[in-house]
Amino acid sequence: MSDKIIAIDAMGGDNAPIETVKGAVLASKTVKYGLALVGRENVINEELKKYSYDADKIFVVNADDVIENCEMPTEAIKNKKNSSMVIGLNMVKDGQAVAFVSAGNTGALLTGATIIVGRIKGVKRPALGTMLPSEKNRVLMLDSGANVDAKAEYLVQYAQMGSVYFENVLGKDNPTVGLINIGTEREKGNAMVKEAYSLLEKANGINFVGNVEARDITLGDVDIVVCDAFVGNVILKVMEGLSKTVLRILKKALMSNLRSKIGALFAFPAFKKIQREFFEYDDIGGAPFLGLKGLVVKAHGSSDAGAVAGAIKQCEKFIDGDIVNKIAERL
Amino acid sequence: MSDKIIAIDAMGGDNAPIETVKGAVLASKTVKYGLALVGRENVINEELKKYSYDADKIFVVNADDVIENCEMPTEAIKNKKNSSMVIGLNMVKDGQAVAFVSAGNTGALLTGATIIVGRIKGVKRPALGTMLPSEKNRVLMLDSGANVDAKAEYLVQYAQMGSVYFENVLGKDNPTVGLINIGTEREKGNAMVKEAYSLLEKANGINFVGNVEARDITLGDVDIVVCDAFVGNVILKVMEGLSKTVLRILKKALMSNLRSKIGALFAFPAFKKIQREFFEYDDIGGAPFLGLKGLVVKAHGSSDAGAVAGAIKQCEKFIDGDIVNKIAERL
Repeated sequence: MSDKIIAIDAMGGDNAPIETVKGAVLASKTVKYGLALVGRENVINEELKKYSYDADKIFVVNADDVIENCEMPTEAIKNKKNSSMVIGLNMVKDGQAVAFVSAGNTGALLTGATIIVGRIKGVKRPALGTMLPSEKNRVLMLDSGANVDAKAEYLVQYAQMGSVYFENVLGKDNPTVGLINIGTEREKGNAMVKEAYSLLEKANGINFVGNVEARDITLGDVDIVVCDAFVGNVILKVMEGLSKTVLRILKKALMSNLRSKIGALFAFPAFKKIQREFFEYDDIGGAPFLGLKGLVVKAHGSSDAGAVAGAIKQCEKFIDGDIVNKIAERL
Repeated sequence: MSDKIIAIDAMGGDNAPIETVKGAVLASKTVKYGLALVGRENVINEELKKYSYDADKIFVVNADDVIENCEMPTEAIKNKKNSSMVIGLNMVKDGQAVAFVSAGNTGALLTGATIIVGRIKGVKRPALGTMLPSEKNRVLMLDSGANVDAKAEYLVQYAQMGSVYFENVLGKDNPTVGLINIGTEREKGNAMVKEAYSLLEKANGINFVGNVEARDITLGDVDIVVCDAFVGNVILKVMEGLSKTVLRILKKALMSNLRSKIGALFAFPAFKKIQREFFEYDDIGGAPFLGLKGLVVKAHGSSDAGAVAGAIKQCEKFIDGDIVNKIAERL
């Protein structure tokens, strides 16, 4: 087995352990590192029986407990030492694993990662990066969930960490960085954002291109956008809600009469193509939590095997790119 | 002529004066109040010649100057005393008009309205209300553009003012109010939002139902949502950008081969129906700026005659509902 291990929270997410185990088996066919499935041993082994896989690449680490989605983050991390999440995070801390992927409780994962794995020296706040759909390439948004009361100086670090990730995992040199704002002019925004603008202008190691209005994110003209986590979460959720609403009313309109039903039948492959290219996440994996002394990736709660496999594959690039050390150098 | 006058900024917006004048003529056919078109007299009169209309209901107020979209709000209001916007706002202040509708520079309109028309006694900050599309009825969001550094106590007043508007203009008693947040649990959010939650719970004159995640706004289960203007602007802009992006990629996908082209042809009326019902704004008019001693309505910059007419018709309901006095009583 490879000396490097990626740990996977087999019990985290809406479709665990069925899809998490299946995803790990899928990923093991191409990923060169070993995969540790963390969770209830008997349950995971039952799932593994369904597949043929390279036993040198997948193994199980027992964890009796599970952190549920409804639990309060800090209490859950403190009280459930034998949960798959806490054990997985400790594997990263202790060097037994180089990365941990979980589709479980987001708040608990972010809190646990910060407490257990710890921040890179100099990082003020780790940030969650999410790849957003656009008309061109995917756009990396930070922070999409970690710090809801961000200071301007955090946003500068988000830009620097995001640039390292973009260059080394997504393979584009000197990616452009935009500040999410309510207008393109430099004097726009609230007090924090105005301060962030002037700090970003002077910051090293980033290619800052100014303000980006939220309506222009999906044009895909800027590679990385930075904002506080409250705004980032709102952007993600509006995209999710509006997409679903538009698809539902489209479906309803298309089913309303014979003519449109015929149209829908003919147009169906085109719809599927959009849905796959624009709204599905298998190809991009999970959201990296940047700024920690190891890699922690949040997979979407409703991840299926394909999405879990995508998140695991993304870890390989992160590890090979030596992101943790490069972030430390960039700040 | 009616003793009550609605003033219209004939020069404001991307399609002024052609669509603003046409919109006023359209509205004059049903609105019982007089309509004053404010702007360059000769230009407006040229436009008016195109139509037959009741000369008792439409008249022109000359204004030599125009505030452009690129101008800084405070300077523009201070320096362009003879602009259509400043003259229209002064008509409201002086009681010559009961309402002013403009599709011009948003920042200048909000600044000018606050300075010239002035706040209702007790209102801390006037707020811009926008009607968002949803799967059920339209949802009123405040603040969608006025105060980017809002305090928790402002949000309580937004909820109260929005409730008065909803009851009297949209005709629904005891409308529900939600706080836009990053989760539904009461302990979620940034510092300002957490404080707003506890104030909203105790506030009079509103039907507060708790947090609403941004993805659930378009479900339409809550009538009114409140947030600071930075978040409100981001929500509006993400909706605008994503809708356009989805329509563009849908069109591209449908035009990609013969089969999907046939589908598009049959499905076309259904698409048009969605676009009309979900994304067009003629039926809802403009965004009311609530909390002032008179009515000021911001119409979308790209308003056509139908949207201008919608905004004017909405003023009639506002005036008949005696909203200014009812807001003063509610706080």
